[in-house]
Amino acid sequence: MKKSSRTQGSRYYPKRYDFDPAQRNAILDEGLVCHVSFVVENQPFIIPTGYCRVDDVLYLHGSVGSHFFMQMAKGIPVCVAVTLLDGLVLARTVFDHSMNYRSVVAFGKTRLVESDEERWLAAERFTEHVIPGRWEEAGKPTKSDMKKTMFIAVEVEEWSVKFRSHGVSDDPENMGLEVWAGVLPLKQVPQAPEADEEGVKGIPVPDYVLNYKRG
Amino acid sequence: MKKSSRTQGSRYYPKRYDFDPAQRNAILDEGLVCHVSFVVENQPFIIPTGYCRVDDVLYLHGSVGSHFFMQMAKGIPVCVAVTLLDGLVLARTVFDHSMNYRSVVAFGKTRLVESDEERWLAAERFTEHVIPGRWEEAGKPTKSDMKKTMFIAVEVEEWSVKFRSHGVSDDPENMGLEVWAGVLPLKQVPQAPEADEEGVKGIPVPDYVLNYKRG
Repeated sequence: MKKSSRTQGSRYYPKRYDFDPAQRNAILDEGLVCHVSFVVENQPFIIPTGYCRVDDVLYLHGSVGSHFFMQMAKGIPVCVAVTLLDGLVLARTVFDHSMNYRSVVAFGKTRLVESDEERWLAAERFTEHVIPGRWEEAGKPTKSDMKKTMFIAVEVEEWSVKFRSHGVSDDPENMGLEVWAGVLPLKQVPQAPEADEEGVKGIPVPDYVLNYKRG
Repeated sequence: MKKSSRTQGSRYYPKRYDFDPAQRNAILDEGLVCHVSFVVENQPFIIPTGYCRVDDVLYLHGSVGSHFFMQMAKGIPVCVAVTLLDGLVLARTVFDHSMNYRSVVAFGKTRLVESDEERWLAAERFTEHVIPGRWEEAGKPTKSDMKKTMFIAVEVEEWSVKFRSHGVSDDPENMGLEVWAGVLPLKQVPQAPEADEEGVKGIPVPDYVLNYKRG
């Protein structure tokens, strides 16, 4: 686990930096969307997209016709961020307001996944990352589906894990202010499933949909 | 509203691209965290951070001691993304799975905010963006608080708004599969407020905390 000027925080927040791989994996496995940045002629770009993790590798997938994926197929430096927002920290003064969050930022290089074995592994793990139980049940990709799909591995060279998870930190001189202070937790909550009304009738909603949760 | 190779989708998804400023503003005003990318020596970086919108300008703020903010104070090209995840689209086949989301990607240049008037406007709008009603009630920033805080305006040159908001789109030949299909909506939901136990006792939870919602 290297630290460098890319991943060392510019100010030392001992509570906010952490490089424990288990915590990093927990954040990556809970997140659903990542933001990928890359550079074209000194211009930064960001694309929000799905992802999955297999050990220390992040996988992305997209259409073989996507310009973004064609860029990544060449092997380019990327930065990938996954951020989970956990709550609003409402201090007695505006200045001490904050947010609770957990984030992973990964620096690495893209690699086009070429072997069938790794492509199928990525396809399965992608599906299971988003909704465990779905791969077994849904129709598997056909040869034609797989031909249309590009898988990119991000070989991560450096990770940064940053978080804030504690309560309000007001300055002592502000503790007498008559202002409500506390944390308002935020959570990504599944709502009632909306069944598609076409196709075969009477299929019950699977347990893995009814009981879906992250983290 | 310019379109260029930066903001034109590489494939034409009429349902997914849109440049309506009202929709763009709604996404920006609902989001709480943005991802900012910038380039240092051809290396892309991403920082997740808070933001607010004032008309067509995005504001960021951070510590005057932050390396990231010191970079941005120089006036550098950035890409800023705000992504809202609305649901999982569970098709009959793995290949047709998708996500419903709304995202804004902005390309622009950073500008150090120097005038007191604009700095105070940004401070107020930042607070009100996160939790409307809070600015009036919480202790205002002191001169010293403001000295420690850098405000950066992102002067946006181009916007891209992308979304998916419809149901399952399975290929006709897969409609006979006996697989449950539908959308599992996801929503960022506030949980019970956790009051700070220090300080003045007996302050009721404000309505703007109890009834907090986004969008």
